[in-house]
Amino acid sequence: MPARKHIRITEVGPRDGLQNEAVVVSVQEKVAFVDLLSQAGVAEIEVSSFVSPQWVPQLGDAEDVFGRMSRRDSVVYSALVPNEEGMQRALAAHVDKIALFTAASETFSRKNTNATIGETLRRFTPVIAQARSASLPVRAYISCAVACPYEGAIDPGRVREVAARLLDIGADEIDLGETIGVAVPSDIDRLYEGLTGLLEPAQTTLHLHDTRGTALACALRAIQLGVVSFDATCGGLGGCPYAPGAAGNLATEDLVYLCNRMGYETGVDLGALFAASRHVAAALGRALPGRVFGADGNERGNDKGNGSRFGR
Amino acid sequence: MPARKHIRITEVGPRDGLQNEAVVVSVQEKVAFVDLLSQAGVAEIEVSSFVSPQWVPQLGDAEDVFGRMSRRDSVVYSALVPNEEGMQRALAAHVDKIALFTAASETFSRKNTNATIGETLRRFTPVIAQARSASLPVRAYISCAVACPYEGAIDPGRVREVAARLLDIGADEIDLGETIGVAVPSDIDRLYEGLTGLLEPAQTTLHLHDTRGTALACALRAIQLGVVSFDATCGGLGGCPYAPGAAGNLATEDLVYLCNRMGYETGVDLGALFAASRHVAAALGRALPGRVFGADGNERGNDKGNGSRFGR
Repeated sequence: MPARKHIRITEVGPRDGLQNEAVVVSVQEKVAFVDLLSQAGVAEIEVSSFVSPQWVPQLGDAEDVFGRMSRRDSVVYSALVPNEEGMQRALAAHVDKIALFTAASETFSRKNTNATIGETLRRFTPVIAQARSASLPVRAYISCAVACPYEGAIDPGRVREVAARLLDIGADEIDLGETIGVAVPSDIDRLYEGLTGLLEPAQTTLHLHDTRGTALACALRAIQLGVVSFDATCGGLGGCPYAPGAAGNLATEDLVYLCNRMGYETGVDLGALFAASRHVAAALGRALPGRVFGADGNERGNDKGNGSRFGR
Repeated sequence: MPARKHIRITEVGPRDGLQNEAVVVSVQEKVAFVDLLSQAGVAEIEVSSFVSPQWVPQLGDAEDVFGRMSRRDSVVYSALVPNEEGMQRALAAHVDKIALFTAASETFSRKNTNATIGETLRRFTPVIAQARSASLPVRAYISCAVACPYEGAIDPGRVREVAARLLDIGADEIDLGETIGVAVPSDIDRLYEGLTGLLEPAQTTLHLHDTRGTALACALRAIQLGVVSFDATCGGLGGCPYAPGAAGNLATEDLVYLCNRMGYETGVDLGALFAASRHVAAALGRALPGRVFGADGNERGNDKGNGSRFGR
């Protein structure tokens, strides 16, 4: 029997999910959320962001969450770091890995970070030097890797260019963000064709949003192309809080269900993941859009006859 | 330039969608629904079912809908026919095509139609003879083609056996129903491997439910294998009416969005399809779970900047 292909899952619900919620979740609830995710067996958890609380008040308690959560040796606990000041906070909080954030769209970069792409890269240089000194790996997000809410379709050549510059300045991992949830599988083909010779699909992480229900089909296409690392949020956390039921990120349960049933190894226990999703849904006081969670994630999910058994 | 691959879409919302709704929609609203679907450009519409109104009161007005709807030459108007009595009604209503219904699971067949699979096939023989006399094509559904709510996973060999018997008695089209929405793409591989030498993928229709968000990924895999004909319901109609927001069939908009953006030809106009979904959502008084409809299908869908332009 050949070894089963491993699919690495980074749970970004505590950061990318909660930063888009109108409700601010307490430190205690966040810590319980992260601990439940650790127990579910994800490879990495993006715990929080060391951005200024003025900009993202939902994540103003990053130090407290890092200080109180229970760490497991098998899990990487990462955080978003916007600049040198954030890096100092991240180091003091003993993060395992940092994540930086730029874009393939100039307009998005300016609107989202008030800086050109070139300026974000120059900000990264000292931060990456500090990470190197502390032996911390560096993930670099390229948002709008397929399309931009302002510019529309993004040329894969622009993604390649930004990825090349990030690798030049020392990023260890390139995370391709399909920010607005418009991608179809052929876009994933074009994205990776654009990276040929620079990055193999297996060297990247793909970050999908499920706004139009296409995220799982895109993940399948990416797996076929050789991608083995994905971001996701449990329950599909991260939808717009002003549109109840609106889809957010690719739901971790949906990806795990597909992978587990197709014979890939994720290390994630679906039932334990449901517990994390139920916890955060209760903390937010809203239903989550994830489909497998909605079908099988209720309290009696284990006892239901028609389907929940398939994903285990 | 090679001709674009055509994907044939049968809209089954008026039948498979509405028969699962608690609310009974008026004849007038059904006729308007079918007319909007005709205008959207789907290849076929399963308009209703000539089953006894005692069994499915939601579709007790099949004759009225066939009598009042506006027919387009480019659209096939089909109906489900359970037996010879239903066939007489279907002939009187001038259907273009009939659909018969059996299963790959004995338990499901008994619970759903009060007959063994063998008995359903024997019932079909005189109905198919009548269809032949009237020059009407015959579609035959095999439900539970991947899994059964009672028996769990279904052996693809059983699907093959039922398909072979249906072809023997004269069915023109085999429609493989993934009834409970548990399939992942590897199930689609196994299903078609099981049919090798009997039916090419391009000779079948695939009927997917999106209960666990996997329907579009399964459709992608099916397209890769050569399937060119799918059932779907606009807005993802067909979810359980007792679970608001629960997913139903594969949403026509989600399939059309993926196909149109991947360069396949569906003949369907997404904006016109939204009008049909908005109409039926209003008639039912509930939100529909389809993702593209939810993201882009509101009244101002055409004007939204971030995504709706991609599917057109």
